[in-house]
Amino acid sequence: MKVQGTPTRTIWLNDDGWSVGIIDQTKLPHRFETLTLGTLADVAAAIGDMLVRGAPLIGAAAAYGVALAMHADTSDAALKKACRVLMATRPTAINLRWALDDMAGHLGRVPARKRMAVAYARAATIADDDVAQNAAIARHGLALFEAAKRRGGPGAPLNVLTHCNAGWLATVDWGTALGPVYMAHDLGFPIHVWVDETRPRNQGASLTAWELGQHGVPHTVIVDNAGGHLMQAGEVDLCIVGSDRTTANGDVCNKIGTYLKALAAFDNDVPFYVAVPGTSIDWALREGVGHIPIEERDGGEVASVTGLDEDGRMTTVRLTPASSPLRNIAFDVTPARLVTGLITERGIAEASMESLAELYPEHDPKGATG
Amino acid sequence: MKVQGTPTRTIWLNDDGWSVGIIDQTKLPHRFETLTLGTLADVAAAIGDMLVRGAPLIGAAAAYGVALAMHADTSDAALKKACRVLMATRPTAINLRWALDDMAGHLGRVPARKRMAVAYARAATIADDDVAQNAAIARHGLALFEAAKRRGGPGAPLNVLTHCNAGWLATVDWGTALGPVYMAHDLGFPIHVWVDETRPRNQGASLTAWELGQHGVPHTVIVDNAGGHLMQAGEVDLCIVGSDRTTANGDVCNKIGTYLKALAAFDNDVPFYVAVPGTSIDWALREGVGHIPIEERDGGEVASVTGLDEDGRMTTVRLTPASSPLRNIAFDVTPARLVTGLITERGIAEASMESLAELYPEHDPKGATG
Repeated sequence: MKVQGTPTRTIWLNDDGWSVGIIDQTKLPHRFETLTLGTLADVAAAIGDMLVRGAPLIGAAAAYGVALAMHADTSDAALKKACRVLMATRPTAINLRWALDDMAGHLGRVPARKRMAVAYARAATIADDDVAQNAAIARHGLALFEAAKRRGGPGAPLNVLTHCNAGWLATVDWGTALGPVYMAHDLGFPIHVWVDETRPRNQGASLTAWELGQHGVPHTVIVDNAGGHLMQAGEVDLCIVGSDRTTANGDVCNKIGTYLKALAAFDNDVPFYVAVPGTSIDWALREGVGHIPIEERDGGEVASVTGLDEDGRMTTVRLTPASSPLRNIAFDVTPARLVTGLITERGIAEASMESLAELYPEHDPKGATG
Repeated sequence: MKVQGTPTRTIWLNDDGWSVGIIDQTKLPHRFETLTLGTLADVAAAIGDMLVRGAPLIGAAAAYGVALAMHADTSDAALKKACRVLMATRPTAINLRWALDDMAGHLGRVPARKRMAVAYARAATIADDDVAQNAAIARHGLALFEAAKRRGGPGAPLNVLTHCNAGWLATVDWGTALGPVYMAHDLGFPIHVWVDETRPRNQGASLTAWELGQHGVPHTVIVDNAGGHLMQAGEVDLCIVGSDRTTANGDVCNKIGTYLKALAAFDNDVPFYVAVPGTSIDWALREGVGHIPIEERDGGEVASVTGLDEDGRMTTVRLTPASSPLRNIAFDVTPARLVTGLITERGIAEASMESLAELYPEHDPKGATG
């Protein structure tokens, strides 16, 4: 997608043919800064400190991390170390393990002298495959947008509400939930996005608002509390969110607060769609509510917030009384009964075991637990 | 309720016998500062800039605003102007109109030379009546707390979730929704409050957390997104919120985001109660959804947030891209079907026209519109 008018990916090989470029996402939306990563340690720090984030982007970054390790040393020991170091950066990210297993598998089969070339080629393929997968999700989502009822009437833009950031910044390009939005916009389909702020880390207010703005997509930032009223008032035609993990029955684990928006959508007959790359489906779990372990993070993220002060400095301010206890739950689970459909790279599935199994016949959810 | 161990009200007549004291609530939770109001303009600014807020406190403040106007000039023109200026400060709060009508009615009946004394006496009565009314709500709410199912088991504290600030800071004392909480705590009933942050103005994170902490009530601050997950996980026994306006059928207009919590409570069989002083019931409206005008405020409240920086200064930081449009809707309407009960000073009503009419037979909702 575009940044300052220039098509940009979230991760790329630099012109020198070996070092890797990324956007420092911790500076957004206030500053657009790119960084060059030249070592395994650089990549591990970029993932660990969340300069790059979003499951698909973390996978691609880890693949390039292995390539950079091979650029320095193609030994078995170096390969093993690279996988171990990268795996430790975000131990719960599914795409991280998947990408590292893929790299280790490909590199383990070739002699050391060929490993550098194979590693770069494989990392490029992982990145390109992510782009292709998201483009497929975008096409399937676009068909839903075209068929959706527009409450504002025939000439009005389609009003889409999204939560958190499942945009191109979370992937290599296009994004998952926002892929259909970009494709619609690029094709001249009138669209407007309600952007949930997404407390406590404000990924909506910072990342989603920034990337939509850079690409020129009409949007409005709202607090997380506002979506219910907007749906009640007929100002939302469709909701679309991403998913960190979707269980075999279609329960959707996503950023905290997603469940509340799904309830409001259900109560107001607003379609609620989830963009789900096949790689994020957990076939081993038969249901999500009460079974997916939910990450809890430091309460400091609730107590304080960082933004740009009047002097243009990034400043952290405290919002709560110093003595008040805090709880910071990172995700929630939206039951399948509230989900209108799952948008995968293979097409639209109902949020049910039967419908998902039809799209992914190679997986047998019958052995799932939970 | 207590501040630093001392019983305190939110508004009082100073020892000089004519000027009015308030807490500057915009400085909370970081600084406890009181202010003296000496003119109609002071009061209008205090209400308009939300130094005092909360429907009952706004009503009491408006009454004292009229008294201060009469302190300066007891003419008919001055009375009329005072009511006009104060009415324009906040469009949604029904208590504002009620208090001003009450003051205008009492003062219109007496000659100008008696107006100052009558105005101060009437303002004091309005403040005292609010305290008595909230104590009655607290007693009725306490009975509900005692009867409520505690998911944590017999010895566990009752886990109550609240949104925004319907505590003593929003009233003259006790609070509406938090009145039963304080009464329960004072009587040794084990209780814990989940405090919704309440974006964009963070009344939960700042005011509710502060007042519960000052009075020693166990509580935990969470982001607005978290309540759905907590209810799904069985960590909420009961929700209780305030109301800015309740229509004759029991639809509840309250801080934006209340509707989302009511949906989650309904979905998880968690009782959802609303503390409703009789004065906040709008008998002229037969239903609220689509009929109560909803205040929209400046988008800057969404874009930026003010807190305490590392040097102890109140600092405002921007969260969103400078070019992103914003929308800031202050209230939403929770349909009566999601409300378990309305806690009034006369007892508990179902959220229905029939049940409310039984408690308030002097009002005939049959003539209501909407």
